[in-house]
Amino acid sequence: MTTVQRWDVFEMSLHGPASGNPFVDVAVGAEFRLANRIVHVDGFYDGGGMYKVRFMPDEEGEWSYSTFGNHESLGEHKGSFQCIPAAAANHGPVQVANTYHFSYANGLAYKPIGTTCYAWVHQTNQLQEQTLATLRNAPFNKLRMCVFPKSYVYNANEPPLYPFPRDSQGENDLSRFNPDFFRHFERRIHDVGSLGIEADLILFHPYDRWGYSEMPADVDDRYLRYVIARFAAFRNVWWSVANEYDLVKTKTLADWDRFFRILQSNDPYHHLRSIHHSKTMYDHGKPWVTHVSTQGDDFSRTPQLLAEFGKPVIYDECKYEGNIPRRWGNISAPEMVRRFWLGTTLGAYVGHGETYLAADDVLWWSKGGHLKGESPKHIAFLREILQTSPPEGLNQTSDYYLSAGRKDKYYLYFFDLHQPKNYEFALDAEPSFLADIIDPWQMTISRLDGTYRGKFSLKLPGKPFMAVRFQAQ
Amino acid sequence: MTTVQRWDVFEMSLHGPASGNPFVDVAVGAEFRLANRIVHVDGFYDGGGMYKVRFMPDEEGEWSYSTFGNHESLGEHKGSFQCIPAAAANHGPVQVANTYHFSYANGLAYKPIGTTCYAWVHQTNQLQEQTLATLRNAPFNKLRMCVFPKSYVYNANEPPLYPFPRDSQGENDLSRFNPDFFRHFERRIHDVGSLGIEADLILFHPYDRWGYSEMPADVDDRYLRYVIARFAAFRNVWWSVANEYDLVKTKTLADWDRFFRILQSNDPYHHLRSIHHSKTMYDHGKPWVTHVSTQGDDFSRTPQLLAEFGKPVIYDECKYEGNIPRRWGNISAPEMVRRFWLGTTLGAYVGHGETYLAADDVLWWSKGGHLKGESPKHIAFLREILQTSPPEGLNQTSDYYLSAGRKDKYYLYFFDLHQPKNYEFALDAEPSFLADIIDPWQMTISRLDGTYRGKFSLKLPGKPFMAVRFQAQ
Repeated sequence: MTTVQRWDVFEMSLHGPASGNPFVDVAVGAEFRLANRIVHVDGFYDGGGMYKVRFMPDEEGEWSYSTFGNHESLGEHKGSFQCIPAAAANHGPVQVANTYHFSYANGLAYKPIGTTCYAWVHQTNQLQEQTLATLRNAPFNKLRMCVFPKSYVYNANEPPLYPFPRDSQGENDLSRFNPDFFRHFERRIHDVGSLGIEADLILFHPYDRWGYSEMPADVDDRYLRYVIARFAAFRNVWWSVANEYDLVKTKTLADWDRFFRILQSNDPYHHLRSIHHSKTMYDHGKPWVTHVSTQGDDFSRTPQLLAEFGKPVIYDECKYEGNIPRRWGNISAPEMVRRFWLGTTLGAYVGHGETYLAADDVLWWSKGGHLKGESPKHIAFLREILQTSPPEGLNQTSDYYLSAGRKDKYYLYFFDLHQPKNYEFALDAEPSFLADIIDPWQMTISRLDGTYRGKFSLKLPGKPFMAVRFQAQ
Repeated sequence: MTTVQRWDVFEMSLHGPASGNPFVDVAVGAEFRLANRIVHVDGFYDGGGMYKVRFMPDEEGEWSYSTFGNHESLGEHKGSFQCIPAAAANHGPVQVANTYHFSYANGLAYKPIGTTCYAWVHQTNQLQEQTLATLRNAPFNKLRMCVFPKSYVYNANEPPLYPFPRDSQGENDLSRFNPDFFRHFERRIHDVGSLGIEADLILFHPYDRWGYSEMPADVDDRYLRYVIARFAAFRNVWWSVANEYDLVKTKTLADWDRFFRILQSNDPYHHLRSIHHSKTMYDHGKPWVTHVSTQGDDFSRTPQLLAEFGKPVIYDECKYEGNIPRRWGNISAPEMVRRFWLGTTLGAYVGHGETYLAADDVLWWSKGGHLKGESPKHIAFLREILQTSPPEGLNQTSDYYLSAGRKDKYYLYFFDLHQPKNYEFALDAEPSFLADIIDPWQMTISRLDGTYRGKFSLKLPGKPFMAVRFQAQ
């Protein structure tokens, strides 16, 4: 019997009609059953008369299936497979945990340390391979990437593949998809997944010269269902409905609501769903938004965002390390690292991006390639610290405005611009804590003598940007 | 004939009654005349049967005077003096100029670079002399200082002198003043004036254990009139009605309004009037407030403050360089310098303060003494730059959010956290400008080759915290 790891992809291929327009005319899918459970999954047309149904089993055991379709060649195919335990590196999809945090489906904590390569999949294969090689040695476990190609400053090149067929005048045939485009794209989802990276897929965006930001509603909806049918079975998929949705002038709030509902209804696995703004935030209180994906560098908003929405907060864009002549793309490496610490000690998460000028216009933030900046290694240092922090996540504590932790267990303080020579801490009366002075930029951790509890004063280095960690003994 | 420099103090002494309570019972003053002008000036009782009337003539020529009083010994004294041109270092009192800026009465530009020694006058004479020696070599031209002594953290000592007589139990006699206290205080006003420093006198404050923050209204008002009669003739006096007025819980908004009106009606010279807050700003739109004296480090508020009130904006407290365990007292020197540049390039002014821990509790911010920090020499560098900027002051320009200047004349850009490798500037089409790259921390000014006008791109250092200056040729 076929075996499939838990949270891996089971895929079946079916032959069916190749004439007419199967993308529009033909429906296909399957019902998967385990004991009393039934999971209804849509399939998709992959061109050349081939149809596919993909399924991500989330439970071990013998799953049976039966296909359905509106053409006789596609319905009533039956079979089964054995879902076996996940391999060690396979933790399943990420979901919200403990209100403000995340975990993998197997319960392992997931602490997002994201980066951004919006259009890396739309570059040459050589450049894509370079991006993957860079990611292999980088600290990031989430990647924001656009499904559609990108047209913007430093992004003048044409993509190797287009999502819809085009004629010689560049006119799109929006009634069909280009299976080559999507096969390539999903290979890249799989590639970053193999590196332990969540693919935060941006489904719409305003940086467009091909017409993908102004398609009719029926095309938008078909595109979404096609993307769900193809991609949702990959466990590392997240749905970011849009980047800077409020700059997409052709759509209304009702459109964005509808897109969320399509994702919510059609994705059998309920991957994480968010939407990213430029100036005006989408109402993150709506039930289909799983977490706050925000832009900006005013971290003082964090407590309000957490309290208002009761969901995890990710600063997916806090501006980029770089040196381009745009305000959003020229902060220094120390400032980028500082922002990670600000977000972390306010109980939120932060994403990285990099925009250093390049003669070949290959800026990491969009095209990937090499990382040129200094921040990633310091972000890696923070990631290591978070790996030994409580798995349930760090919530802001009341003692100091930049301190997050878990009562009786762990506290992380960040002193930002402040350089006190000593500071009076107020921890729990019990237990006793070990204390470390952390220098986020020098990447040193200095254990202090003794143990600490309740109220006490500590001598600090008297330098800005220091951190202090307390771990229950 | 007696000669008095323009904007110097003419003082006359009169013998009068010493019995009863002259502070309350006796009124004295004089009318000063020059051609058709009449200036009505109140005098004050200086103890020991001596009364004084002080006057600051603001116009050259022969002034005549005639005293008045409610006791026969004080009225109808007549005389005259010759007001002669001011000496080179005497520019007269500071006033608002060009809506958002300041000038001396002789028209010379005044660009405030303030510091803060709240209680320096209430320390030992030795420490006061040390403070004056420090100020002599510091870059500051404004000093915030409290009339009343201060009780607060690091401020536990008793002052050498008290403003009101006290009995052996420490009970104040609020019906009288202590002339020794005020004589000493006004000597210190004069001393800082000799150093070219404006004395921003704080008339009320909440840091009190002697009762001066909770006096009855009639005592408050008598105190104000006494202070005006004694101090207003010193040209370097500014009135700051309170520090953190909203923390003085014994007074209402109507009280603060009344204090302003007393100053407005009784100060014949209309010295600058402001009020400083903790959390809630006083309504700076009220007509008796001459400029905005604000607290905080959110400089992004500046354009709104300027637009809303149409008055100069001074960040009198943007937190202090230091290392004490209080958020307001432990920013680094580079951060303090950065804040001066932020305020300057937003068209406002910024004040300094310093709070480094000291075994003797002598922290500059309150007691004066020595400066220990690194920021003053970098602030001096900015002061030099401002000295060669347009005398009419720098207003925010539209090209970049941190750029201030004067059309066709001068522009100063600050790139703050941003490190663009190049930047496209948009100056006036005419004239041509000389360009300098300025490093505010390294204190270097590098003149670029050539001249610049209209739109052009400049190569920049690609480091954070750089500035660029353009000066019309």
